[in-house]
Amino acid sequence: MKPFCFSNNVIIESARASCHPLDIGLIRGYAIFDFFRTVGPNPLFLDDYLTRFTNSAKKAHLPLSYSKEDLAHIIQELIERNHLFDGGIRMILSGGISDNFFTPSIGDLFIFCESLKLPGTEKYEKGVKLLPVEYVRPIPKIKTTNYTLPCFLSVDWASEGAEDVLYHHLGLVSESSRSNVFMVKDGLISTPATHILEGITRKKVMELAPDIQERDVFFDEILEADEVFITSTTKRILPITQIGDKKIGDGNPGRHTRSLMQSFELLEQEIIGYFR
Amino acid sequence: MKPFCFSNNVIIESARASCHPLDIGLIRGYAIFDFFRTVGPNPLFLDDYLTRFTNSAKKAHLPLSYSKEDLAHIIQELIERNHLFDGGIRMILSGGISDNFFTPSIGDLFIFCESLKLPGTEKYEKGVKLLPVEYVRPIPKIKTTNYTLPCFLSVDWASEGAEDVLYHHLGLVSESSRSNVFMVKDGLISTPATHILEGITRKKVMELAPDIQERDVFFDEILEADEVFITSTTKRILPITQIGDKKIGDGNPGRHTRSLMQSFELLEQEIIGYFR
Repeated sequence: MKPFCFSNNVIIESARASCHPLDIGLIRGYAIFDFFRTVGPNPLFLDDYLTRFTNSAKKAHLPLSYSKEDLAHIIQELIERNHLFDGGIRMILSGGISDNFFTPSIGDLFIFCESLKLPGTEKYEKGVKLLPVEYVRPIPKIKTTNYTLPCFLSVDWASEGAEDVLYHHLGLVSESSRSNVFMVKDGLISTPATHILEGITRKKVMELAPDIQERDVFFDEILEADEVFITSTTKRILPITQIGDKKIGDGNPGRHTRSLMQSFELLEQEIIGYFR
Repeated sequence: MKPFCFSNNVIIESARASCHPLDIGLIRGYAIFDFFRTVGPNPLFLDDYLTRFTNSAKKAHLPLSYSKEDLAHIIQELIERNHLFDGGIRMILSGGISDNFFTPSIGDLFIFCESLKLPGTEKYEKGVKLLPVEYVRPIPKIKTTNYTLPCFLSVDWASEGAEDVLYHHLGLVSESSRSNVFMVKDGLISTPATHILEGITRKKVMELAPDIQERDVFFDEILEADEVFITSTTKRILPITQIGDKKIGDGNPGRHTRSLMQSFELLEQEIIGYFR
């Protein structure tokens, strides 16, 4: 984490930030958050992220005493104080101290700046593996901090050579733990329509390729896809070349995936140019 | 909360307790906890709870630098400092600050003393209602802080006149959000065997009535039960007289439930006598 953060309504040293342990954010895992990148010192797709964050708060019944404009100002000040360049910004709204230790209350807002840990070049060139897991997230439309299962499973990912999981349930694919998933078959790109967090990178990819179909994607079907990729803020577009023991396509990142990776990079370059 | 707590390895004022907001206990909802009652100043079934807590830590890959004996000593000191009488004690072990903001790390231990909020007499005499919810908890054998869904739903419970939820999935009943569930049909008592947290009160009830069957309990079946009840640390044995729109039995707490409530009270009295 970078030296300065926003905690308890002021900018302070990050090491001194504090949440009360009886906040239901800790004792009940009830909190919302969001995370975005900066390109240089400039937040990427900031309005999309602030809209999602404020919507998550509303849907989760958590009052947020800051508008999108307020948040943008705080973020700007944090970027400057931290000299953040190509970094990550994490906003968290906790569930608050609750009379019955359960019902959502009035939480605290925290904003941290972080160094970014992006996947290495090799992962983009060779693709990565997902581990299939029978699971579907509750209330996925709200960006909650509910990652108990994947954090637990992540202890064993490395030994399995996997990058992350692929959630499927009752035969339907939903998402990875922190990414959306897409498949390509016979030139058609599809992505699950339901039981997903609506990712900002997913949205941008669908704007780049408006013929992508949002529909039910079956687990049996994705195993037989020509190409699979995932999208997220930090991963952008990352090719998936193996799901469990099953090789996807010829085991290499496919043509459509690589083309979208290029388009997304161009979109980013365009935005960087706009900031200059 | 009571004035003194255990936080960051020392007993301090509860208001000054602090968890860093980047602890994955907050940003990923990854933490374990436990909660038990005191009868007067005496912890009830302490060894069972300490065993479960230390097992949860181990299973969740979270190192705990305190033995059961250490914890018992800290708890004893907290009870004395807080003059706790008929209270609740909450132990939390957070997931810690994680290099990748995800993988379980080395967390902080927090112990708080609380006033107890027990259900009123009317609930025991008339029974309460559960709302059926299609859900099953991941890794239920570990007492994690993963309550995102029920905290979210709890906002609407009051307006539905419900006490809590009843989880069922693929036709099978598992548990309520913080209680185990039992059903009585033709004099036979059954309780779900899988996808549950193994409650300490559940265990004590099964010791009181060793003929209780642990087995698959179907949702269709529980709706047609003669009696239903739930067990938990704070609720002890609480009769369920309605599930959704369906009245259970004749809509009143049944004979077997009332008999077990009495036996459980006798067990508690016996333990209180032992403490004296």
